[in-house]
Amino acid sequence: MRDWSQYTPAQMRRAIRQGEYQGPTAGLCMCFAQCNLIALPKALAYDFLLFAQRNSRACPVLEVSDAGSRRLEWLAQDLDLARDFPRYRLYEQGELAGEYTDAEALWRPDLVSFLIGCSFSFEGALLEAGLPVRHIEQGRNVPMYRTNIPCRPAGAFYGNMVVSMRPMTPAQAIRAANVTAAMPRVHGAPIHLGDPSALGIRDIDRPDYGDPVELRSGEIPVFWPCGVTPQNVVTQAKPPFAVTHAPGHMLITDIPNSGLKD
Amino acid sequence: MRDWSQYTPAQMRRAIRQGEYQGPTAGLCMCFAQCNLIALPKALAYDFLLFAQRNSRACPVLEVSDAGSRRLEWLAQDLDLARDFPRYRLYEQGELAGEYTDAEALWRPDLVSFLIGCSFSFEGALLEAGLPVRHIEQGRNVPMYRTNIPCRPAGAFYGNMVVSMRPMTPAQAIRAANVTAAMPRVHGAPIHLGDPSALGIRDIDRPDYGDPVELRSGEIPVFWPCGVTPQNVVTQAKPPFAVTHAPGHMLITDIPNSGLKD
Repeated sequence: MRDWSQYTPAQMRRAIRQGEYQGPTAGLCMCFAQCNLIALPKALAYDFLLFAQRNSRACPVLEVSDAGSRRLEWLAQDLDLARDFPRYRLYEQGELAGEYTDAEALWRPDLVSFLIGCSFSFEGALLEAGLPVRHIEQGRNVPMYRTNIPCRPAGAFYGNMVVSMRPMTPAQAIRAANVTAAMPRVHGAPIHLGDPSALGIRDIDRPDYGDPVELRSGEIPVFWPCGVTPQNVVTQAKPPFAVTHAPGHMLITDIPNSGLKD
Repeated sequence: MRDWSQYTPAQMRRAIRQGEYQGPTAGLCMCFAQCNLIALPKALAYDFLLFAQRNSRACPVLEVSDAGSRRLEWLAQDLDLARDFPRYRLYEQGELAGEYTDAEALWRPDLVSFLIGCSFSFEGALLEAGLPVRHIEQGRNVPMYRTNIPCRPAGAFYGNMVVSMRPMTPAQAIRAANVTAAMPRVHGAPIHLGDPSALGIRDIDRPDYGDPVELRSGEIPVFWPCGVTPQNVVTQAKPPFAVTHAPGHMLITDIPNSGLKD
């Protein structure tokens, strides 16, 4: 088994593009920003951009492509948006219609891609601060949950927030809140900690996306807004066509996380 | 002369709507957010929203209206976007075509209004921190300057950043940088301090918008990104039609500045 931890972003993108890596990306290229994806027909682009603007805790937009373009040189010179995510999802009328490791065949000339900041960007800062990131320790995908928190609607888009979760002691949670508050472009501070039922989460051991992780004695779950929110919105608002990443399977960019601090 | 300093936001909006107050709004309703305006035909709204997204230091969007609507209840229940700014500007093909204290006659059914955060929102925090805000001391409009800093273009929009300026000692400037960095939705930290010529500003005593203020011995000019940037962009990109506020003559909202900290 290869040691992916030493790969550069360009090397990881190449490995992903060539089908050599198809897994979740937490813990890879820790110093570089990763992105969530939602690609929508241009006719829906204004409504979604406004939705993201109104819900910037869950949907902090890092960049938007021109219609039909698979390139975004601001994120990486060699980027191919249709091939550089390890795994894609196709939604039709709000229904999950398939998962793909290559989205080239899905790419329409009217698709506008929204690249949204990812909490993986602050995990390096958490580890540097001596704070635990359990899904990295356990070699799993991050657990993510649908909540009862409504997003502010915009045009055709409405729906509830999705959150990611990391278990910590209360003292660790306080420090994590301070560390992540300094990085608003990758979701910033937690939105909740403690009782999952306050967010409408019934079983913390059964996440809606990703894998469950161990909650140890003395730990509470700490919840951050998550860039999978647009996928939940798609299942509720049912646009005719949308391509997203598969949760936890992100685009690795050449943007250093330190560049996301303002 | 009336003492406007004790007016609530709703009372100030009413006074402005009735033509009783037509001046700059720095120092009024210090605890409440003020907004810059650019209203554009719906056909240009996506390009401008993307421009704002790509240039969020200068153009942090607080809210966007529906096409043709003069209301934005999220900012204030009684709001009338066409009457509640003390002074408006009309731009046609990028040329300043007139100034008005009431924009009702200009409002088109396809106008989308972008409300952009204003540095007046952090002036209360500066004063609380014991830092000087010279234009308030001197009872003047804030000085604003065109710079040589290019914004990132988006669709039809491109142009250079406008900055506001407040004189401080270097030690005060350092503290002001920390105070304002915590408020990214109202321009955040300064973009420059010291030598104006580094921004292409030739004469600090002749601002492009607003009034000059006194620079005292031992003080340096401190520059923040400014929500008048869209007006400079309009003069460069020349959209057929745009309505803006007159620089320094802002909308006073019911949103407390403390609510803009995340």
